Amino acid sequence: MNFASDNSGPAAPEVLEAVFKANQGYEKSYGRDTLMEEVEERIRDIFEAPEAAVYLVGTGTAANAVALATICPPWGTIFCHEHSHIEEDECGAPEFYTGGSKLTTVGGSHAKINLQELSEAISATGIIGVHNVQKGALSITNPTELGAVYSLTEITELTSLAKENSLPVHLDGARFANALVKLECTPAELSWRAGIDVLSLGGTKNGLLGVEAVILFDPAMAWEFELRRKRGGHLYSKHRYLSAQMQAYLKDDLWFKLAMKANSAATKLAKGLTNLQSVDIVHPTDANMVFASLPRAKHNLAFTGKADYYLWPPNQSLNGDPVESLKARLVCNWSTTDEEIETFLELIG
Amino acid sequence: MNFASDNSGPAAPEVLEAVFKANQGYEKSYGRDTLMEEVEERIRDIFEAPEAAVYLVGTGTAANAVALATICPPWGTIFCHEHSHIEEDECGAPEFYTGGSKLTTVGGSHAKINLQELSEAISATGIIGVHNVQKGALSITNPTELGAVYSLTEITELTSLAKENSLPVHLDGARFANALVKLECTPAELSWRAGIDVLSLGGTKNGLLGVEAVILFDPAMAWEFELRRKRGGHLYSKHRYLSAQMQAYLKDDLWFKLAMKANSAATKLAKGLTNLQSVDIVHPTDANMVFASLPRAKHNLAFTGKADYYLWPPNQSLNGDPVESLKARLVCNWSTTDEEIETFLELIG
Amino acid sequence: MNFASDNSGPAAPEVLEAVFKANQGYEKSYGRDTLMEEVEERIRDIFEAPEAAVYLVGTGTAANAVALATICPPWGTIFCHEHSHIEEDECGAPEFYTGGSKLTTVGGSHAKINLQELSEAISATGIIGVHNVQKGALSITNPTELGAVYSLTEITELTSLAKENSLPVHLDGARFANALVKLECTPAELSWRAGIDVLSLGGTKNGLLGVEAVILFDPAMAWEFELRRKRGGHLYSKHRYLSAQMQAYLKDDLWFKLAMKANSAATKLAKGLTNLQSVDIVHPTDANMVFASLPRAKHNLAFTGKADYYLWPPNQSLNGDPVESLKARLVCNWSTTDEEIETFLELIG
Amino acid sequence: MNFASDNSGPAAPEVLEAVFKANQGYEKSYGRDTLMEEVEERIRDIFEAPEAAVYLVGTGTAANAVALATICPPWGTIFCHEHSHIEEDECGAPEFYTGGSKLTTVGGSHAKINLQELSEAISATGIIGVHNVQKGALSITNPTELGAVYSLTEITELTSLAKENSLPVHLDGARFANALVKLECTPAELSWRAGIDVLSLGGTKNGLLGVEAVILFDPAMAWEFELRRKRGGHLYSKHRYLSAQMQAYLKDDLWFKLAMKANSAATKLAKGLTNLQSVDIVHPTDANMVFASLPRAKHNLAFTGKADYYLWPPNQSLNGDPVESLKARLVCNWSTTDEEIETFLELIG
Repeated sequence: MNFASDNSGPAAPEVLEAVFKANQGYEKSYGRDTLMEEVEERIRDIFEAPEAAVYLVGTGTAANAVALATICPPWGTIFCHEHSHIEEDECGAPEFYTGGSKLTTVGGSHAKINLQELSEAISATGIIGVHNVQKGALSITNPTELGAVYSLTEITELTSLAKENSLPVHLDGARFANALVKLECTPAELSWRAGIDVLSLGGTKNGLLGVEAVILFDPAMAWEFELRRKRGGHLYSKHRYLSAQMQAYLKDDLWFKLAMKANSAATKLAKGLTNLQSVDIVHPTDANMVFASLPRAKHNLAFTGKADYYLWPPNQSLNGDPVESLKARLVCNWSTTDEEIETFLELIG
Repeated sequence: MNFASDNSGPAAPEVLEAVFKANQGYEKSYGRDTLMEEVEERIRDIFEAPEAAVYLVGTGTAANAVALATICPPWGTIFCHEHSHIEEDECGAPEFYTGGSKLTTVGGSHAKINLQELSEAISATGIIGVHNVQKGALSITNPTELGAVYSLTEITELTSLAKENSLPVHLDGARFANALVKLECTPAELSWRAGIDVLSLGGTKNGLLGVEAVILFDPAMAWEFELRRKRGGHLYSKHRYLSAQMQAYLKDDLWFKLAMKANSAATKLAKGLTNLQSVDIVHPTDANMVFASLPRAKHNLAFTGKADYYLWPPNQSLNGDPVESLKARLVCNWSTTDEEIETFLELIG
Repeated sequence: MNFASDNSGPAAPEVLEAVFKANQGYEKSYGRDTLMEEVEERIRDIFEAPEAAVYLVGTGTAANAVALATICPPWGTIFCHEHSHIEEDECGAPEFYTGGSKLTTVGGSHAKINLQELSEAISATGIIGVHNVQKGALSITNPTELGAVYSLTEITELTSLAKENSLPVHLDGARFANALVKLECTPAELSWRAGIDVLSLGGTKNGLLGVEAVILFDPAMAWEFELRRKRGGHLYSKHRYLSAQMQAYLKDDLWFKLAMKANSAATKLAKGLTNLQSVDIVHPTDANMVFASLPRAKHNLAFTGKADYYLWPPNQSLNGDPVESLKARLVCNWSTTDEEIETFLELIG
Repeated sequence: MNFASDNSGPAAPEVLEAVFKANQGYEKSYGRDTLMEEVEERIRDIFEAPEAAVYLVGTGTAANAVALATICPPWGTIFCHEHSHIEEDECGAPEFYTGGSKLTTVGGSHAKINLQELSEAISATGIIGVHNVQKGALSITNPTELGAVYSLTEITELTSLAKENSLPVHLDGARFANALVKLECTPAELSWRAGIDVLSLGGTKNGLLGVEAVILFDPAMAWEFELRRKRGGHLYSKHRYLSAQMQAYLKDDLWFKLAMKANSAATKLAKGLTNLQSVDIVHPTDANMVFASLPRAKHNLAFTGKADYYLWPPNQSLNGDPVESLKARLVCNWSTTDEEIETFLELIG
């Protein structure tokens, strides 16, 4: 039983097959491969964005940081949730890539940005002119780092506020597919139609070996992005292997299918946990992550029984009062089996 | 016939197989996978460097730039050849990662750093103290960007000079295996025993999908490297797929075998070209790259016949006097066939 | 009546005289002037720090940012108060100079860092290793931006916590002299003896034309500081004019005398305000700044009567309910006269 | 006799007087002082540039680096002479402020950029697209670091080439007044009419305590410049003292008068040197600097006799063959007296 991360699971067979198939003969390097042309067309098609610029990189941190540097100047501040990945888990990559911008963090339940708090944070920025950092960009994460999915209305409220303040909007969509299948909306609706300017479209957590797309709905920023990507060391010479993964991902709705599997597993796990005594679900299980509160005794049972997951936040101790509750993050992925879930529930039941 | 780049060729079947095999069940993410432990041990073993810190990244630019930033402060200058990859082909990645260091370029035939010129460049650096950028690091490329391989003596002369000036030394070994099989020496001899402190050990050009190792022979720099790598977005979540490639690469001397194939193909191609009228080999064919001078008419024959390669430098025109000679770079890779070479030679013969 | 800032007042006559006197004949440039030798010796003497490295720059932002960059790596975070100058008033200079470090802000009344909050912030930093920014440095401001002065005990508690966590400590002493005369302690006691590693010693706000010193109590960091200063454009060619100001500042206790005048004026102003109806002092008047809450009607009287000062925070409106209270910052400087204070009090009385 | 640098000389009495006069009562801080309004108007008037944005900073390195960062992106390269101040004497400040741009150096006699070499350097830049750094900006120094003054035609040829390549042009005018009085042209003719977009207008070397102006002839870049200046720590709180210096500098043609004195002294010195045996003038004495070749014996006489100047380049040894010639840089300033020159000539005569 492994619920440590969607990064712990394997890649989907279709993806490996595509990589295997791409490994024939010669191909142009550095993103000029014919597979990439297909990927670009496919993404523009799926997102109903014929002008969008589309790029691939190998990590989510790269996707986020290069994207943010493209839309936020060094003296800007990026408004984001205090529990966003860019704030907490990227070792300052946005600060590095932007050349020293700030991140202004905002609260909100379930790691969703609170509209009122965002409004106040924006209003408080740059009020004494050149002495302050300036309004730079808004970065939203959907699903959030706590497993909740913003509704289209919630997203639009945030992006509308951003637009009123001339802020470009980045969406960290490391688990974008999981949000899509939850909301049953189109990719366009969940991105540019909802006011998103730049999307980090995750693939790695949802069954790829390691590929994320960056979609710039405004192609005016394309060339700058390309230079920043290259300069960051994120332009791959044998790019075809990235293209192949993304092609397979988008083919025959594979990305939706994988996300549905992961979401379903999480739903099943959450339901099972709810039935257990002294166990509470602490954030909505909207996507593929379950956040639950369990007595320390149950955690010890779980870890002794070889279950793998993180206490959340990670700096909690397993030593102490056995009935005291500690929160856990349990992440499902496309390969999570019913058996794993059942075994886990039995273990701690 | 494709001699455009070693990046244009496919990955070796053994490598794909290893990736396929690694795709089983759960694995720890972000470089803590068990395959990586094996890779670390293997590299330490091969390089006779039990203390070395070993890391994997996805591109050569990342390997070089993160390595250089780890050894050179922002106010340092990196001594390198004027035709090095870090100077010419990385869009300023070293400058970006170091926080604004300079590159002081030095000449030398066949893109080998001229010892005397290096000595003069070093001596001229920092002579008026705080007003100048300071001596930062030395970066050598072996094989060079013009296909030549430094002898152990040549390397040692450069690194000795560096040491006298307290300069750490980086080796861009994007084609390190090709140099090794040429020189028939050990990896240790061609790296730390020759005075190299940090090695970018290439894999991508020699048959991987996209993995380079960075070896820090002095592990004191390890933690800083790890932070810079993460901050640069080069720490992969599903790291096992990088480990698997490197493991296969080093297993059963695959890396040597692949490099030998590429080098042999280049030798054969160079030999064939030498036999043609009005064709000259302009740099030693020490590794897998042939630099040749051909009349414009032959280039036009080649390109018309679907040969793929670069004029070198690339900004030369195919229009003009048909007997005038233009230089070309012809790169072989492990998959280059005798048939390709023969077809090419016939085409322009 | 001008209480806008201690930056609004003039320089002390002794300082101008020293500059005038320094303007004779030739002098070495770039900090090698003989006056600077005197300043260095004098500061080492005053601070009982014979090994300290001493530098001069022209602005407080330069002093803080170059100092912080010298002690905090790009991947570190600087712990500071949420109302510190480096967080709120330097347009991201620390982020720029450090190469993209974060500032982790902590609360606390009167802009003093709350020890418990600092402890929690430090403990929460770097808990998942390379994914997080790391503990970088602590920066304290004394007097605070809200006019309060830390006691020696308070400072020592903070620096002890920092030392336990291997954090170097910076003191933003833009108004250091004002704290000194308040506490009646020695410069050494308020700096290195209390655990400060690097001090930005302000001069400009206390009667200079524009000079701040940076004192590195550990001279091991000196050369790096010099390079960062030069690279930041803060090494003055005609440095003698900076030296002359600092020399005059420290001569015959001028800095204490000027600070006492400013502190006394603030005390007098605060006392006068306290006697007024509906006026409250909202932060301790420990130094030369008075923070008071006044009904909007009084503010309007004041501004109509040509008083100059800032509402604090600045984004409050003078339009609205006349009895509603708005906070103000009233800053005294060495040249503030009793008459000014009395006129102001009458105006709003 | 001090010919070490124009930075070694004192400030003009008129300038000190203006600073003294500015030291009355209260004044707005951070560049909003009324003196600055006058300076802005005056500069716009003098330069016939009613839209220009005008700023003051304290050092030439700050003026150059902040200006260049405003016009050149991190991935751009700045074309400049190999003996320009930004390349040789600023410890990498342009690289730091731009966020890691390159400097592409070009040769040319007397430190004037050779048009043909510049053309070749520009043509060779960015030829393989995203792999290369891009064409960023052109920076010209007039007078050059070797004392020569570009004619208007020479400047215009360089800027025309830049414009054809969409390159913004920066002029390092640390000694701009010295060029003006040499050419007897208007400030407009020597700047924007000749194709200059941004001018670093020096004051410090020509009689100020320490002020340089930056003039952006295109005000569209103004706000970005202001943010970069603040972020670099170069926005002075008691800005009035900078304004006062610049006001005095431009009043009653003081800047021309000072420059004429310095130029005349240099002319006189050069003439005197020409009359000496075994002494050669090695660069045109167009402004206030004399570059001369003297036998080592004469240098030793000079230094023994307390003359102060630099061997150029500085890393030449005074020990050795007494008849061998070593080059020297001899800089005159507004305060250089005939007596100094005569004493020096006698000393080595």
